[in-house]
Amino acid sequence: MAAAPIVIDDADDPRIAEFRDIKERDLTGRQGRFIAEGTVVLRMLAVAHVNDGDFVAEKILLLRNRADGVSEILAQLPDDVPVFIAEAEVLDRIVGFHMHRGVLALGRRRVSATSLIDRLPETALVLVGAGISNHDNAGSMFRNAAAFRADGVFLDETSCDPLYRKALRVSVGSVLSVPYERGGTAEALLAQLAARDFAIWTLSPRGETDIRSIPPSGRMALVVGTEGEGLPQEILSRFRSARIPQSEGLDSLNVATATGIALFAMSSAAGRI
Amino acid sequence: MAAAPIVIDDADDPRIAEFRDIKERDLTGRQGRFIAEGTVVLRMLAVAHVNDGDFVAEKILLLRNRADGVSEILAQLPDDVPVFIAEAEVLDRIVGFHMHRGVLALGRRRVSATSLIDRLPETALVLVGAGISNHDNAGSMFRNAAAFRADGVFLDETSCDPLYRKALRVSVGSVLSVPYERGGTAEALLAQLAARDFAIWTLSPRGETDIRSIPPSGRMALVVGTEGEGLPQEILSRFRSARIPQSEGLDSLNVATATGIALFAMSSAAGRI
Repeated sequence: MAAAPIVIDDADDPRIAEFRDIKERDLTGRQGRFIAEGTVVLRMLAVAHVNDGDFVAEKILLLRNRADGVSEILAQLPDDVPVFIAEAEVLDRIVGFHMHRGVLALGRRRVSATSLIDRLPETALVLVGAGISNHDNAGSMFRNAAAFRADGVFLDETSCDPLYRKALRVSVGSVLSVPYERGGTAEALLAQLAARDFAIWTLSPRGETDIRSIPPSGRMALVVGTEGEGLPQEILSRFRSARIPQSEGLDSLNVATATGIALFAMSSAAGRI
Repeated sequence: MAAAPIVIDDADDPRIAEFRDIKERDLTGRQGRFIAEGTVVLRMLAVAHVNDGDFVAEKILLLRNRADGVSEILAQLPDDVPVFIAEAEVLDRIVGFHMHRGVLALGRRRVSATSLIDRLPETALVLVGAGISNHDNAGSMFRNAAAFRADGVFLDETSCDPLYRKALRVSVGSVLSVPYERGGTAEALLAQLAARDFAIWTLSPRGETDIRSIPPSGRMALVVGTEGEGLPQEILSRFRSARIPQSEGLDSLNVATATGIALFAMSSAAGRI
């Protein structure tokens, strides 16, 4: 049962302070809190919340005329999650820009007792990102991981937090559904995965194995680096590398698209799709 | 031989008027003129220009401290293409925002005497976009078409012009290297392609044929629709449809990524990559 909506008519109301100027600053890093934006992401957050997943909805802020449109989603949430509504003029002053979507939630990530690497199933496909600092690319990578049934995403400490508002939005909420962990160096992460019998495949335009010829194995990890630079040589020389066959040219595929194609090929090889 | 650079110290100088406020307005549609941004796109424009391709460089505008970095590219252009340079403060006033890249060109598309459909080789792979209005997606689709060696891109009249500054930038200049045509209805376009022996494959999450099982044929066309809505039912029911196998869920892959995967699969099937 959703809470009865509370009308906000003052942008300075402390009850909605977390939604202030969300374009200029990001809550990420403040005790795992984040802003979820749009109906699709709200729905994913509600699903995680009611299933005791890794995420909790703390409060909702809606444009008044959007409240009816999301009532079905809100009905799933318990009534201790407050729902605030505001007119467009007030909402725009709260968030600091014109907000035509008008659906916002404050969420929090729960700290998991066991690390993701120890929770992975016996047969698993994971995605590892090193230096993925672009929020769009991070979001798209989660979307692709969800589409091709990856069991988890690992991001090194130099990658951005996928709970950034834009990454989360671009992921169409997949950041809330695909288990992930972020932190540590890519080298340490890959050593841990290798020790747990993962076949590690780095992706590079100059990779040795055609992505269509990767042999299937029970546990597979795809490793992608930042656009432009790619993966550091230390990583490329330590693990097997795969390439997506394509035109020779100055610029390879966008990292998000390349990740999608590689996950498609690996998920195909493993018989997962 | 490049022209000797001309210093611009007044943002209102009529010689660089086309670069004024480029964020707010777009030249597209004005006799095929467009703004190319960044070193990579400038290089593609210079290549098209000197090879008598579909595009001509009309003038160049650079941040003073970027001029050395692109001198090799400019040296390819004839000296009747003027090169203007400006300090950061002047350049920012010209373009209307802070321009840290500092490499701009005014280009023009030449009108081709013969239509693209009549210039396609006997064995061909083409991409058809219907209702691709998002500039990012349009740009990414060209990048994917270039990576997987498509012979051409057709966009219907409801798709955006790929020469929009952002589409061109996201394409990393592929809009200037992959032949394309834009206009007409998708239905008319597909009828023309079918009449020229193209096997038409529409892409849809509910497509009948797994994209990995498309039979190769000499001439193949991949048809993609707008994100969200997808292709209209009239088109889906008239032609064969393909799907990318993926998780069931509310949101399918991003249209750019889906196009990349489908082109990868079709180009593989046809033995082109």
